[in-house]
Amino acid sequence: MTASDDPSTQSATPTIISVDAMGGDLGPAAVVAGVALSASGNPNIGFILHGPEETLKPLVAKRQIGNRVEIRHATGVVAMTEKPSQVMRRGQDTSMWSAITSVREGEAAVAVSCGNTGALMAVSMIRLRKLPGINRPAIACLWPARNPGGFNVMLDVGADIRAEAQDLLQYALMGASYARNGLGLARPRIGLLNVGTEESKGHAELKAANELISAGAEAARFEYVGFVEGGDIPSDRVDVIVTDGFTGNIALKTGEGTASLIRDFLYEAFKATLLSRVAALLAYPSLRRLTKRIDPRQVNGGVFLGLNGTVVKSHGSADATGISAAIKLAAQLGQTGFNERLAARVASAVASGQDGPIQDNKNKNGSGK
Amino acid sequence: MTASDDPSTQSATPTIISVDAMGGDLGPAAVVAGVALSASGNPNIGFILHGPEETLKPLVAKRQIGNRVEIRHATGVVAMTEKPSQVMRRGQDTSMWSAITSVREGEAAVAVSCGNTGALMAVSMIRLRKLPGINRPAIACLWPARNPGGFNVMLDVGADIRAEAQDLLQYALMGASYARNGLGLARPRIGLLNVGTEESKGHAELKAANELISAGAEAARFEYVGFVEGGDIPSDRVDVIVTDGFTGNIALKTGEGTASLIRDFLYEAFKATLLSRVAALLAYPSLRRLTKRIDPRQVNGGVFLGLNGTVVKSHGSADATGISAAIKLAAQLGQTGFNERLAARVASAVASGQDGPIQDNKNKNGSGK
Repeated sequence: MTASDDPSTQSATPTIISVDAMGGDLGPAAVVAGVALSASGNPNIGFILHGPEETLKPLVAKRQIGNRVEIRHATGVVAMTEKPSQVMRRGQDTSMWSAITSVREGEAAVAVSCGNTGALMAVSMIRLRKLPGINRPAIACLWPARNPGGFNVMLDVGADIRAEAQDLLQYALMGASYARNGLGLARPRIGLLNVGTEESKGHAELKAANELISAGAEAARFEYVGFVEGGDIPSDRVDVIVTDGFTGNIALKTGEGTASLIRDFLYEAFKATLLSRVAALLAYPSLRRLTKRIDPRQVNGGVFLGLNGTVVKSHGSADATGISAAIKLAAQLGQTGFNERLAARVASAVASGQDGPIQDNKNKNGSGK
Repeated sequence: MTASDDPSTQSATPTIISVDAMGGDLGPAAVVAGVALSASGNPNIGFILHGPEETLKPLVAKRQIGNRVEIRHATGVVAMTEKPSQVMRRGQDTSMWSAITSVREGEAAVAVSCGNTGALMAVSMIRLRKLPGINRPAIACLWPARNPGGFNVMLDVGADIRAEAQDLLQYALMGASYARNGLGLARPRIGLLNVGTEESKGHAELKAANELISAGAEAARFEYVGFVEGGDIPSDRVDVIVTDGFTGNIALKTGEGTASLIRDFLYEAFKATLLSRVAALLAYPSLRRLTKRIDPRQVNGGVFLGLNGTVVKSHGSADATGISAAIKLAAQLGQTGFNERLAARVASAVASGQDGPIQDNKNKNGSGK
């Protein structure tokens, strides 16, 4: 009855990652450096690199990764400021479009891009289409957390600013699949983000979603812990935090901003006196460990869920380390056949009626129950 | 035309703070310890302490603050788990009710309570009533930030889970007053929290609020910086962050949770090796400075805005240091005559039509324009 989305079997053939070389803040040189870093650490990955051939060829040659990389020529670049509608109209010659097309055509398992989120989601939606039964795709991110694996998953962090109860249930299903395949958790704990943990709290959609997710937990083999609060996001109470894209985006950026503030305060504290500078020198290995643990580059990569193909959105400002982390995540998801498992899971939920449209006439893209 | 809410004149007569001794997680002993700490540091504050006389008398005697404190006997206690509706029905004998009544009767300038937020807001609303022209009161909190004063203000962080465009404009006006009186900023910079800074982003209410606040900035003498993102909350781009109570509450708790996670990771990093322990010893003064800068106890106190009287909500888990910080904030607001200035500012905005109900038939409590 229940589809398997456990990553129990892994293939030994190389996993091909489709990389959009353009559109990042640091330009194609940083992307190629990230590909090189990733290639040297992971012999089992191959790359299709999308962008202007005359730009990419020398960069690839310089990094000596010509044998691992196929360059796919695309002249256009999606600018950071470009609106999705503009990209839809005249974006077909861009590296972003080309990178997504490689996933659509089955040449690559997963696509990675540093380009602008709105445009990337729009191109992904039109090229890959939504999975049957999914109303709103979502973007999932990883959070440093207290639980054993060191990370939680949160979704949606910005694919859509709205979410009905039914969408939040789908996020729970997709988040559970992601936690199984991305974090290796057999029975992930799901929480629904709210302003309090009592059942009486929050908007009407949240109360409806609370009941839907609770009812679906058994069949979809996750544990539902109920409402969680902002303070629980980095906790070990929960593995997957479900929320709408508006709230999730604010929470994500607030968390990043807070971490960056404390990092700066820490540097200032250590620079304050001669004694503290000496201490900083002695503490260097420990501080490095800490910095690495909370370094946003290490958890770089928002994953687009709910499409016929997986897309990893890297931070626009990602450097080689950040891009390499995004590629690593993409490869891991590609190797476990994540998206096929996710699709099977959603299809199974739809078939069993867990995920069908219920008392929700706003849900125009209702599942095929 | 514009009412003054600048704290230019300060009175020399003692400021009386009404303190609810009950309802905190650590019990009345911690509250009385906080009062004592505050009394020793601020000769210009007097206290009315609310709770069971037989409990409070020995605690006050032990701290030798009998000459600074008047005990007001109240037998009932509002429990942390109690719903606002329960408190409304049978809460009139409680220390919380009594503490708010002292502000209502003009005996005290400001009330401080560690009690449960929902109950405290309900009691404050019914006893103090909303300021003329205010539809939804708000809770404002302080955030450690990069700007010169070290703090930003954010509101609403949880008085109400909904906010219309008109409410968000009122939050901007109230937040500007709070920044003038609480942070001493003559012309605070106001930002509206959203998922991007482009004008096209966000919900319809946010777009409407963006226009309303922009139009009201000149007359209310604040600078409007437009939309800000989660990452800007601790920045020096903005002094007051305006948002609805659902989003604000999630952001606040996410920020606190992130800070607490990093603090724990920092301790772990320093405990890891012998060398790092030595380093920690040398770095102790610097680390203490850092810890103090991000210590939530130092910024303890959510301020209820938009009522006929000021109420400071302390964290339920506050210890003596936290309670003393909340009292200090309360005294500062009391000394500047903050609430009268805020009321004048709101009245002026209403009179000039900035704050009148516009195309908003849901706004049942429309201002008296």
